[in-house]
Amino acid sequence: MKALILAGGSGTRFWPLSRRRRPKQLLGLDAGTSLLRSTVDRLAPLIQPEDVWICTTELLADAIRAELPEVPDRQVLAEPEGRNTAPAIGWSLVAMDAGDDLVAVLPADHLFADPESFRGQLELAAGYARRDDRVMTIGVTPRWAETGYGYLELGASLGDDGAREVTHFREKPDADTARAYVDGGNHLWNGGIFVFQASTLLGHLVRFEPEIGAGLERIKNSPSDLAAAYGELPSISIDYAVMERLRGIGTVPLDGGWSDLGSWEALAEIMPKNEEGNAVEGDVIAVDSRDNLLYADQGTVAVVGVEGLVVVRTEDTVLVIPRERSQDVRAIVARLKADRRDDRL
Amino acid sequence: MKALILAGGSGTRFWPLSRRRRPKQLLGLDAGTSLLRSTVDRLAPLIQPEDVWICTTELLADAIRAELPEVPDRQVLAEPEGRNTAPAIGWSLVAMDAGDDLVAVLPADHLFADPESFRGQLELAAGYARRDDRVMTIGVTPRWAETGYGYLELGASLGDDGAREVTHFREKPDADTARAYVDGGNHLWNGGIFVFQASTLLGHLVRFEPEIGAGLERIKNSPSDLAAAYGELPSISIDYAVMERLRGIGTVPLDGGWSDLGSWEALAEIMPKNEEGNAVEGDVIAVDSRDNLLYADQGTVAVVGVEGLVVVRTEDTVLVIPRERSQDVRAIVARLKADRRDDRL
Repeated sequence: MKALILAGGSGTRFWPLSRRRRPKQLLGLDAGTSLLRSTVDRLAPLIQPEDVWICTTELLADAIRAELPEVPDRQVLAEPEGRNTAPAIGWSLVAMDAGDDLVAVLPADHLFADPESFRGQLELAAGYARRDDRVMTIGVTPRWAETGYGYLELGASLGDDGAREVTHFREKPDADTARAYVDGGNHLWNGGIFVFQASTLLGHLVRFEPEIGAGLERIKNSPSDLAAAYGELPSISIDYAVMERLRGIGTVPLDGGWSDLGSWEALAEIMPKNEEGNAVEGDVIAVDSRDNLLYADQGTVAVVGVEGLVVVRTEDTVLVIPRERSQDVRAIVARLKADRRDDRL
Repeated sequence: MKALILAGGSGTRFWPLSRRRRPKQLLGLDAGTSLLRSTVDRLAPLIQPEDVWICTTELLADAIRAELPEVPDRQVLAEPEGRNTAPAIGWSLVAMDAGDDLVAVLPADHLFADPESFRGQLELAAGYARRDDRVMTIGVTPRWAETGYGYLELGASLGDDGAREVTHFREKPDADTARAYVDGGNHLWNGGIFVFQASTLLGHLVRFEPEIGAGLERIKNSPSDLAAAYGELPSISIDYAVMERLRGIGTVPLDGGWSDLGSWEALAEIMPKNEEGNAVEGDVIAVDSRDNLLYADQGTVAVVGVEGLVVVRTEDTVLVIPRERSQDVRAIVARLKADRRDDRL
């Protein structure tokens, strides 16, 4: 089995710690270790670095090669530009020349509390991907009615090991639908990990998105056209391009310990707390303050009488935002882009 | 008339912007100009720099001489250590060899929106100080029931210009008393400015605080004993040592425009506000946030969805505190002192 790690994230959710050149996957958010490094280390007992491929952007390729010296340089693929996950996966599979090989696609920036059980379920999924020529996913028991994830509706058992057919894949439902899915107990979150035979997934992708298929064909036949051809690929996620449309997906459940660390709030949740409920990193002085995430990447963070805030201080910036609004850091990043503040992006 | 500016403040209220070596009076809080510079400039049409004396600490003397090159170096007096305002004023008057001269004592770090009316009232006070040999104060119409100030109870008129006798000087009343004073309408705040003939004030000080009198005598007769003798002076404010005990004080009212800038909240009140009610300094990005003081001395301050906060970013520190608790920044400074964090004091 080969691994294809998607590491093109632009890193807006952990701003100001994450920047264009230092996105989330390169931050030491896994107890000081970068999420990308943890992802590779987590796979190693099952998939060795010589079978690991990384898809990223030109901006990050050098930093990623430096972070992962054990992965052959040529296996760090640099997209000419970001076109979302369907083109990224399609192009990577072509570049990997993966044929009928089993491939696990994984995000570079997720956390797993229990790496051993993660590897066990990944192996299980690989078995069904091979046996049934099926596109398999890793499903996570939902913990709240998240509207930013995909949901897997569970069908018949594939075996006696918990693997199930997926009767419906629903990307990013509205709040009411998500609530109903979670309350109903018959849905899992899509954990963003897919296992399949490369030729199978490529076949589905070309069938559902002929424009991507034509573009990939052009790139294969004329590698010097890469930049031009890639820029014309439709920008669409693999979830919308393939998963929502494909019949016969399967899933293997993974209970507990998964986090996509999608926000400062998600980081706050997994960090240890002190007696006042504060999650603290770096040089922090907190007086009469509760349930905050206080993150001093550089310098000192001092707070008095505040509750439920995220305060992040970097070398050049500080962010203050209520924990429950931490997704809205995107509004700051959008403002910076509009103002062409490249010095802070 | 001579001016004696008290500039020994240790600068804890504007932490982290204020530090031991850069206290409030040296900060550019008056629209970019240091409060000390503004104090000297405000006096200049009435009291020229060659008649200005500054009492400060050894830690700050050089910085103050650099800030005020037009004040003769020897008129910047450096206390061996801080012993509060009664010893500071007594010793300065001795060092000034002021005799029967009129002297105005002024804090280095207050603001006046209307410098012309300030000078007019100061001149008025000087007239009564000379005519009646009276210790005169500048009284400010109280705007809230502050417990940190002194209150002047108004007695008979001294003339037809608003000057009044003070029948009672009450330093730092409790909250109920302060409330009654403000509601009663017969009290003014003590603005911290006193005008008197030097010999008169020194006479009162020696009479009420003989220990200070003996110490000053020793210093006068044996200047080399300064450090030892000064360290033994009782640490007491001029308000408790003289003003509360002295009969026959007078006051001249000053309406509006005075602020002692006693906290971040006081600064927020006098700063201009944008449409969202935010007072902003430096590189600030505020999204969906109201009524904050956002102060970027260095780098960028970014906030989303917060209200009524003070956020101050300096080169090495950030402070976050609700505006109404901004006095409690002292708790942080106390913690830093206890932890011997001289790098942040």
